[in-house]
Amino acid sequence: MHGFPQVIVFLGISLDGFIAGPAGDLSWLSECANESPAETGYDELMGRTDALVLGRNTYDAVLGFSDWPFGGKRVYVLTHRPMAPAHGEIALQGDIEQALCRVQASGARTVYLDGGNVVRQALEKNLVDELVLSWVPVVLGGGIRLFEEGLTPSRWQLAKTRSFQSGMVQASYLNGCSAERLECGTGEPA
Amino acid sequence: MHGFPQVIVFLGISLDGFIAGPAGDLSWLSECANESPAETGYDELMGRTDALVLGRNTYDAVLGFSDWPFGGKRVYVLTHRPMAPAHGEIALQGDIEQALCRVQASGARTVYLDGGNVVRQALEKNLVDELVLSWVPVVLGGGIRLFEEGLTPSRWQLAKTRSFQSGMVQASYLNGCSAERLECGTGEPA
Repeated sequence: MHGFPQVIVFLGISLDGFIAGPAGDLSWLSECANESPAETGYDELMGRTDALVLGRNTYDAVLGFSDWPFGGKRVYVLTHRPMAPAHGEIALQGDIEQALCRVQASGARTVYLDGGNVVRQALEKNLVDELVLSWVPVVLGGGIRLFEEGLTPSRWQLAKTRSFQSGMVQASYLNGCSAERLECGTGEPA
Repeated sequence: MHGFPQVIVFLGISLDGFIAGPAGDLSWLSECANESPAETGYDELMGRTDALVLGRNTYDAVLGFSDWPFGGKRVYVLTHRPMAPAHGEIALQGDIEQALCRVQASGARTVYLDGGNVVRQALEKNLVDELVLSWVPVVLGGGIRLFEEGLTPSRWQLAKTRSFQSGMVQASYLNGCSAERLECGTGEPA
């Protein structure tokens, strides 16, 4: 099984670069950008996604929702801690590259990544093909940054941009280099 | 003399939040976003600017240009070190708030701020009225951040957004609160 899945990241981000506020707070996202998932393109993105790879913190947060939002999708959780899957989700250990090769081997072609640590790992290894950033017009002052220092410099192609009533500005970027660099072998990452 | 000048910031910023690369490198700006100052709106902004307040590093960098780009403008330089003005520029000591009151007292109504430290000071004190950010589609991996941690949370109004051939996305934000909070007294900041 060769090739590598298309990896998509879709995140709201403050003007000062935070994807979550202090203590993981996400309330600013819904308070300051009240567009529906249909309006923001999240629904369209989910429609073309085969599989999700979530970080453990994100997974645990989603478990707290009243409904499981990923019915019908294969969901993988990158975690080193025990978990009790309630919806068929699969725990994966190892690094993000190994995880994506496992997901690829299952037949998935388009993978949605979520969770700060997971996305940062993927950015560090230049594994993200499509990066959709929605800048929410707030300065948070602190929290969890999407981009830490020390990433390998990279260039992106702007594919689409649009703005919303709330003042949110969304830009979709494509990474022309990522997919070519990596190939999954027969079980082991290349 | 009451009131406070309109304070404008206009900066190119990488996707990871840097306004200059390692060692202050700015070459990525012209390499990755080759639009002219007329196209980006910089010329229009300069046309409605009475005065510039520059940080010392920015001023020293501008002195290295073949031509002085600010002919006909009042230029103030925030610095604690001696300088030898060559184009009528005025050295100011003190903090950004005191500097802006001095500029206001001179009759200026619209002030352009430039320089990472100066802009950060103004953001920290919520003195920026108009923030024009041009996201250049690169990840730099390091350098000088525009937004450090610890800023007071603030909300901004999106006034305009546009994208460019290079993939740069520009958004202009207005700060509804800043001007109301401050007033210059008769020599001392209120």
